[in-house]
Amino acid sequence: MPTRTFSFGLWTLMNAGADPFGAPTRAPLDALHAISGLAAHSVGAFELHAEDLIPSGSSGAERDRMIREARARMADTGIVCDACGSSLFTEPVFKDGALVSNEARVRSLALARYKDAIDVGHLLGAPLFNIWGGRDGSEVEASRSPIEALKRLRDAFNNLADYIARQGYAMRLSIEPKPNEPRGDLYISTVGHALGFIATLEHPDRVGVVPELAHAAMAGLNPAHEVAHALYAGKLFGLHLNAQRPLRFDQDLRFGGAGLKDSFFVVKLLEDENWPLPRTFDAHPYRTTDEQGVWSFVQGCIRAYEVLADKVAQFNADAEVRTLLAEIREWDHTAETGSVSPHRGFAYERLDHLVFEILTGTRVH
Amino acid sequence: MPTRTFSFGLWTLMNAGADPFGAPTRAPLDALHAISGLAAHSVGAFELHAEDLIPSGSSGAERDRMIREARARMADTGIVCDACGSSLFTEPVFKDGALVSNEARVRSLALARYKDAIDVGHLLGAPLFNIWGGRDGSEVEASRSPIEALKRLRDAFNNLADYIARQGYAMRLSIEPKPNEPRGDLYISTVGHALGFIATLEHPDRVGVVPELAHAAMAGLNPAHEVAHALYAGKLFGLHLNAQRPLRFDQDLRFGGAGLKDSFFVVKLLEDENWPLPRTFDAHPYRTTDEQGVWSFVQGCIRAYEVLADKVAQFNADAEVRTLLAEIREWDHTAETGSVSPHRGFAYERLDHLVFEILTGTRVH
Amino acid sequence: MPTRTFSFGLWTLMNAGADPFGAPTRAPLDALHAISGLAAHSVGAFELHAEDLIPSGSSGAERDRMIREARARMADTGIVCDACGSSLFTEPVFKDGALVSNEARVRSLALARYKDAIDVGHLLGAPLFNIWGGRDGSEVEASRSPIEALKRLRDAFNNLADYIARQGYAMRLSIEPKPNEPRGDLYISTVGHALGFIATLEHPDRVGVVPELAHAAMAGLNPAHEVAHALYAGKLFGLHLNAQRPLRFDQDLRFGGAGLKDSFFVVKLLEDENWPLPRTFDAHPYRTTDEQGVWSFVQGCIRAYEVLADKVAQFNADAEVRTLLAEIREWDHTAETGSVSPHRGFAYERLDHLVFEILTGTRVH
Amino acid sequence: MPTRTFSFGLWTLMNAGADPFGAPTRAPLDALHAISGLAAHSVGAFELHAEDLIPSGSSGAERDRMIREARARMADTGIVCDACGSSLFTEPVFKDGALVSNEARVRSLALARYKDAIDVGHLLGAPLFNIWGGRDGSEVEASRSPIEALKRLRDAFNNLADYIARQGYAMRLSIEPKPNEPRGDLYISTVGHALGFIATLEHPDRVGVVPELAHAAMAGLNPAHEVAHALYAGKLFGLHLNAQRPLRFDQDLRFGGAGLKDSFFVVKLLEDENWPLPRTFDAHPYRTTDEQGVWSFVQGCIRAYEVLADKVAQFNADAEVRTLLAEIREWDHTAETGSVSPHRGFAYERLDHLVFEILTGTRVH
Repeated sequence: MPTRTFSFGLWTLMNAGADPFGAPTRAPLDALHAISGLAAHSVGAFELHAEDLIPSGSSGAERDRMIREARARMADTGIVCDACGSSLFTEPVFKDGALVSNEARVRSLALARYKDAIDVGHLLGAPLFNIWGGRDGSEVEASRSPIEALKRLRDAFNNLADYIARQGYAMRLSIEPKPNEPRGDLYISTVGHALGFIATLEHPDRVGVVPELAHAAMAGLNPAHEVAHALYAGKLFGLHLNAQRPLRFDQDLRFGGAGLKDSFFVVKLLEDENWPLPRTFDAHPYRTTDEQGVWSFVQGCIRAYEVLADKVAQFNADAEVRTLLAEIREWDHTAETGSVSPHRGFAYERLDHLVFEILTGTRVH
Repeated sequence: MPTRTFSFGLWTLMNAGADPFGAPTRAPLDALHAISGLAAHSVGAFELHAEDLIPSGSSGAERDRMIREARARMADTGIVCDACGSSLFTEPVFKDGALVSNEARVRSLALARYKDAIDVGHLLGAPLFNIWGGRDGSEVEASRSPIEALKRLRDAFNNLADYIARQGYAMRLSIEPKPNEPRGDLYISTVGHALGFIATLEHPDRVGVVPELAHAAMAGLNPAHEVAHALYAGKLFGLHLNAQRPLRFDQDLRFGGAGLKDSFFVVKLLEDENWPLPRTFDAHPYRTTDEQGVWSFVQGCIRAYEVLADKVAQFNADAEVRTLLAEIREWDHTAETGSVSPHRGFAYERLDHLVFEILTGTRVH
Repeated sequence: MPTRTFSFGLWTLMNAGADPFGAPTRAPLDALHAISGLAAHSVGAFELHAEDLIPSGSSGAERDRMIREARARMADTGIVCDACGSSLFTEPVFKDGALVSNEARVRSLALARYKDAIDVGHLLGAPLFNIWGGRDGSEVEASRSPIEALKRLRDAFNNLADYIARQGYAMRLSIEPKPNEPRGDLYISTVGHALGFIATLEHPDRVGVVPELAHAAMAGLNPAHEVAHALYAGKLFGLHLNAQRPLRFDQDLRFGGAGLKDSFFVVKLLEDENWPLPRTFDAHPYRTTDEQGVWSFVQGCIRAYEVLADKVAQFNADAEVRTLLAEIREWDHTAETGSVSPHRGFAYERLDHLVFEILTGTRVH
Repeated sequence: MPTRTFSFGLWTLMNAGADPFGAPTRAPLDALHAISGLAAHSVGAFELHAEDLIPSGSSGAERDRMIREARARMADTGIVCDACGSSLFTEPVFKDGALVSNEARVRSLALARYKDAIDVGHLLGAPLFNIWGGRDGSEVEASRSPIEALKRLRDAFNNLADYIARQGYAMRLSIEPKPNEPRGDLYISTVGHALGFIATLEHPDRVGVVPELAHAAMAGLNPAHEVAHALYAGKLFGLHLNAQRPLRFDQDLRFGGAGLKDSFFVVKLLEDENWPLPRTFDAHPYRTTDEQGVWSFVQGCIRAYEVLADKVAQFNADAEVRTLLAEIREWDHTAETGSVSPHRGFAYERLDHLVFEILTGTRVH
């Protein structure tokens, strides 16, 4: 089996169990413990919001110390940082948008903060800076033209891509789309919208997409199709794995915790395409989970991926599956001219049932 | 393993592949062939709309002949009829409702037609008459008070229950709820609404519910909870098994084709509670499926149920699962007084992951 | 125009703008200021969680003082308390359920706490105790049988109804259903499920339902039908008015802020049925709203109701609407026998368009 | 008021009221009657599927005659054709996809058929050929790689754009996205996905998007944001106006029949941006509507647009709205440097309430 790198967002472990209707239920891990703990669980990489490590408002000296400590921890354990971002979305000043705010000063502040976070990412060796613009949306449509919002986002992404290039950082930029929550509607709602938007930038090649499975499910879309659009466009710069019941609040469940078949087809795309980047988990433990349970959560995510990757190999090797797929390919190889029958039957009932048997480990040979 | 009876709606096999945007793609089976074919695939029971067997507008003589032939086929093969209904919903005269129509004459006609279908069910030995009132809803809220609609439904169900009792038929009555489609909103939208409605009838004991998994998913509800409400209330008179991506058009996919984990927990309830009635499939083959593929579809449904029932047994026998569940039960047996800790951790991450491993057949011992 | 009583949940005004991804953005009002402020805005009633007034952990003396002060404020301003509840759902100890917890001691504690809150409600003159069991659900289906959960809820509601009766309080009990959030799935998910559940209690007459419009929209159901089911069953003990884009996170928008047509038909039911109870708003100001804006929010809710109630009167008085509805009624008065035509056309396009014109205030006479 | 051109799809009038659960309820109009009828109702343009006019399988002579007759009807009445497409999606041969079929011969046939339809569009003077690939999706993920599907779509759109260019037709090409139905998932699911896909074509400038409001609502997205993405990208080549309750089966309701506020903001974008193209309605009359009611439906769509366009003008002229928007603009004009306050309040509660008052025609001056 290939060696894959797994990664977790530090915030996933630092999550203290609060939700919109409830107070925290466990002590939050600090970032350094999270890094060490991941390494101890054979996780090869981590992603972070700069503020996970360096709380907003820290002095320059504190910042430098925290980065030093994180780098030491990374050197000691061999874990690397595969992506950095910023949690501007938590802060009241950005409550009506960071990059799309109606206030020029707030937009400037957001750019400055993102640049600070880009610097942090650079210092930690992150090859990717990923932006989920959690406040870049609206509930009050009259307050801002969505066209104006897209122009502001365009200017901001051009600016940040330019900053990275001018600094000479070996870092790409990405957008993580989400349809809604915490804002009524976010402007970059799906992978498609991110890809369409990126095509309007000055240097589209510098910017990619980080789909999140739960966000795709929140939009009711097929997560494998979201990933496929990004792969097809050469834009899959990262991926956030988790689980979610469709079309409800953002659940960020443990990978494997819901949407088993959809997850299988996402893993199938990644494995079939030999996608080379870390498999990053962006879920959070249940609110009922205690500090110890956080590591059970970590193990569950990884194990679920490995199980599904094994299933992909089984599917690809299964004799009956191969026969059915060869038959499909044969239709495609016959001469393009000639009549076609409206009554051709497709063995898709059987093919899909074989997915069921392979997924459930009940394939009888 | 226990012997279970499986059942299919005849209409599921007679489906010719038409959809709102496309013409039929396969020749429809006739009802008698469907009955024989099911028996040949070891299916012990069938459900039907009276019109599946006796097209609307048939003469009395035709009706009697069709019933005779069906009974002969049943006697020959040993298959039984476990439920009957009516497909009034297809006919233009009921386009604005059958039991809730704004026209008294249409309501009378609907009652008469349902009674005819009840008679057919009786003659076929069906222990249940199940009503899915596919037109009993609205798109134009102003056209009918929903309170008036509920009163009309109440009068109709009282009338039909009374008819069955007066005829001395050994038959119960049931409601199959659905949130929408083909009407904008149907008045009896979920199992909950059916149960609440039944409580307002003259003889609530005579009427139960037939949940359909796809309908529950269309409402975004947890299908196992829908079934649990019916079981808790002693009202699970039948069950339609199939699959569906949540919150979209009615897909009626092959059981096992989607919602694997939800399906597992539905099967777990049925098996744990020793629910004694047939497991009925109300799905339809893909539009891409031909006549032969219909039987692949039938086999897939049955096999999926058997696989999931095996998984339930495995789950219940798994040592680690048993330990975790015993721990949960123990909390419940300690004295009811005494202090509780807000910091108690629950091993639910692990428990839910064990479900993943058992579902995927990857449990390592 | 009839004089209507409006009411707000105190918590709606005390909301400080935090959300799952963001910190508070405004100073919270305290309960007494909220009461006075409502009275100053001509609001006749308020609803509260006991903890809004008496923080969890307060001493008996503090409790008594707070109640005295609230009663004084009520006496001074003439505002009344129309319903009380409890916010157990915020507290970590109830993280895996209050009335359905797997721990007998937690369930006992929840009952005790609800009884304390019932006492508070009684002392404030509340005629209703309303329970939204925000933690009484699950994400980990394996952790608890949903049938067992329903039995625990049944025992608890019987216990609380009994307590109220034994105390001789002039108070009814109600359930506020919600499909999900903060738990993955809540056991009492819709008005229908609440009604079905109530029918299984010892004294069904003592318990009713408080639908919330946003919760109905979260389930993708027609809010007017939710209210209609409760009215039809004689169980509309209260109502929470707000707004919500369907099938996403709980938005609790200002009444009138979304779902205009659905809101109109809800108001139409209430006004047409002369529903006598306060119109209670359970929404919260946007996170972008400051302390002053909270009162703009209050005014917006009230004005939206009044506007829609006026529209109902206009609709009921409109000559063309009356003609169309009279035509519908006539179909119903013709003899029940006689043939019906499958080709009868219904003027529903026009009727629904008239709703559009009345709603938009553009009816041309 | 500006003169706007309205347009209807011919198929919207030719719809006979069938649905997945019910037979046709009215005689279908033929295409020529539909054209004349639209002209008689002051509709300036129509859109069609080539097959609406020329049934699949017609001879060349029949084709030519039908085109001659349609052109005569257009010349007589002054109505123009603003877009053409093809209803391949109805035909069994394309049941598993037209442009994405697994059979090379079926893809070739689809291209040939689209070219025939492009020729028809050219002969009718249509400036746009719009493709809704209703079968270009899947239920059985294993049957086709979604990446392969996108490559097939890319090749096909390149081929068709090339054909149009080589023929020298003054015609643009467009994609109409839809998330699902009739297939489980369609590959081009939203405006975003269409825009991202178009960026991968050989000549992206030749291809645009035709959003449909109902399709946006089926994906749970904000329809105004869908339209804004297309306008921002310079790709709004057409627009299908209708209405839909979110996240359920495709309802195609009369414009104005649902989603009033969303529709207002769509109209606002079109009017504020002076979008120059016809406002096309792609809805269908209720199944309960008879032949006469079809024209009531037509009038309702047009009237709803005109009402909402008037509302836009009112909103833009409203003194309080102007003051609030000027205040917002002022924040943006202050120097970009300088501190910002996390506690700034936004008058969005009031602004959104003003939308409510303007929408309901209850603005008090």
